[in-house]
Amino acid sequence: MSSISFIGLGGMAHAIAARAVAGGNSVELIGRDPAKAKGLAAELGAGATTGTFGTVPVGDIVVLAVPYTSAVPVVARYGDALAGKVIIDISNTFNADATGLLTPEGTSGAQEIAKAAPTSAYVVKAFNTVFGHVLVQERPLDVFFAGDDAGAKASVSVFIESLGLRPLDVGGLEMARWLEGVGPLLMGLARHGAGTFDVALGVDFPA
Amino acid sequence: MSSISFIGLGGMAHAIAARAVAGGNSVELIGRDPAKAKGLAAELGAGATTGTFGTVPVGDIVVLAVPYTSAVPVVARYGDALAGKVIIDISNTFNADATGLLTPEGTSGAQEIAKAAPTSAYVVKAFNTVFGHVLVQERPLDVFFAGDDAGAKASVSVFIESLGLRPLDVGGLEMARWLEGVGPLLMGLARHGAGTFDVALGVDFPA
Repeated sequence: MSSISFIGLGGMAHAIAARAVAGGNSVELIGRDPAKAKGLAAELGAGATTGTFGTVPVGDIVVLAVPYTSAVPVVARYGDALAGKVIIDISNTFNADATGLLTPEGTSGAQEIAKAAPTSAYVVKAFNTVFGHVLVQERPLDVFFAGDDAGAKASVSVFIESLGLRPLDVGGLEMARWLEGVGPLLMGLARHGAGTFDVALGVDFPA
Repeated sequence: MSSISFIGLGGMAHAIAARAVAGGNSVELIGRDPAKAKGLAAELGAGATTGTFGTVPVGDIVVLAVPYTSAVPVVARYGDALAGKVIIDISNTFNADATGLLTPEGTSGAQEIAKAAPTSAYVVKAFNTVFGHVLVQERPLDVFFAGDDAGAKASVSVFIESLGLRPLDVGGLEMARWLEGVGPLLMGLARHGAGTFDVALGVDFPA
């Protein structure tokens, strides 16, 4: 069981938090709109609490569940309030037509977030390869993650398993760019070869 | 049934050509070493033929099965001998430690190959997301592809199905960069979360 704080109250936060509660984790919900946070906490039940935006979150793991364009400013705003935390960056960084990424070559959303975070925080990229509306379905799903700190990745892996999902480590934080590149791929797949946004990317192991 | 020429005689050519023969396609093998081509043709049987490097290939579809660092020079060397052909670029373009790509932002191996090819040729990116040694296993596998010409993509899709694999269109050729980004991801996954190079990436559809 982990102690998790969510910054952001949108669809992804809702989907992951619902699984987190079901998996017996302690959940705190934080948003700029306290009423919305309280409403979501009531809906989730199981002792889900709410926190104050900008102050130290309760959770050891903080799921940064805001759009990428807000993520760096939010982390900068938090500043030392995120010291020592494991920050999960779930953002997709693709552009308006989902053919490219917003970040330049040689970096990624996750790496930009890491630059903005306290040096004692650990950023792990995860969940961006799973569509939020798929996360709420009852399906086996793979969650790819990347990060530089082994301990932080171990906590994130335990957390992902507690959600009933399969954690798959792809390496250091520099791999976040290629995880973020899966965003455009999934969008393209949904619009072309799959013809549905109900698809998920998974890993097939040999029989 | 399709008529397929392979330029290149390495592991990927071998794996795809073996499936192509089994799927009833007409197969031509082309390499700089005619003896090696003849040996592979004999091994494949089923009327597999050999062609002369640099001259017009027999196949309507040409699988460019050389390392990316050779691919653009080979296509330039062929020049108009590839006019009107559907060229399948199967290359991976990742760097020595498989954390980044050899091509700069805004392009991809496939797009560089398209620039070097005759304007009447159609480049389709495919197969780079499947490890060659996995292709020779008896497993259901997904093959992602990208390209700009609908007709060329339709032929490639039929060809992929003839191999007993599932074709999945991800969009235009600009998506090749993100398919190539799957190369580092798969390498990272094999080295970390999966712990085996016998993994394959697949798409899970809702039940």
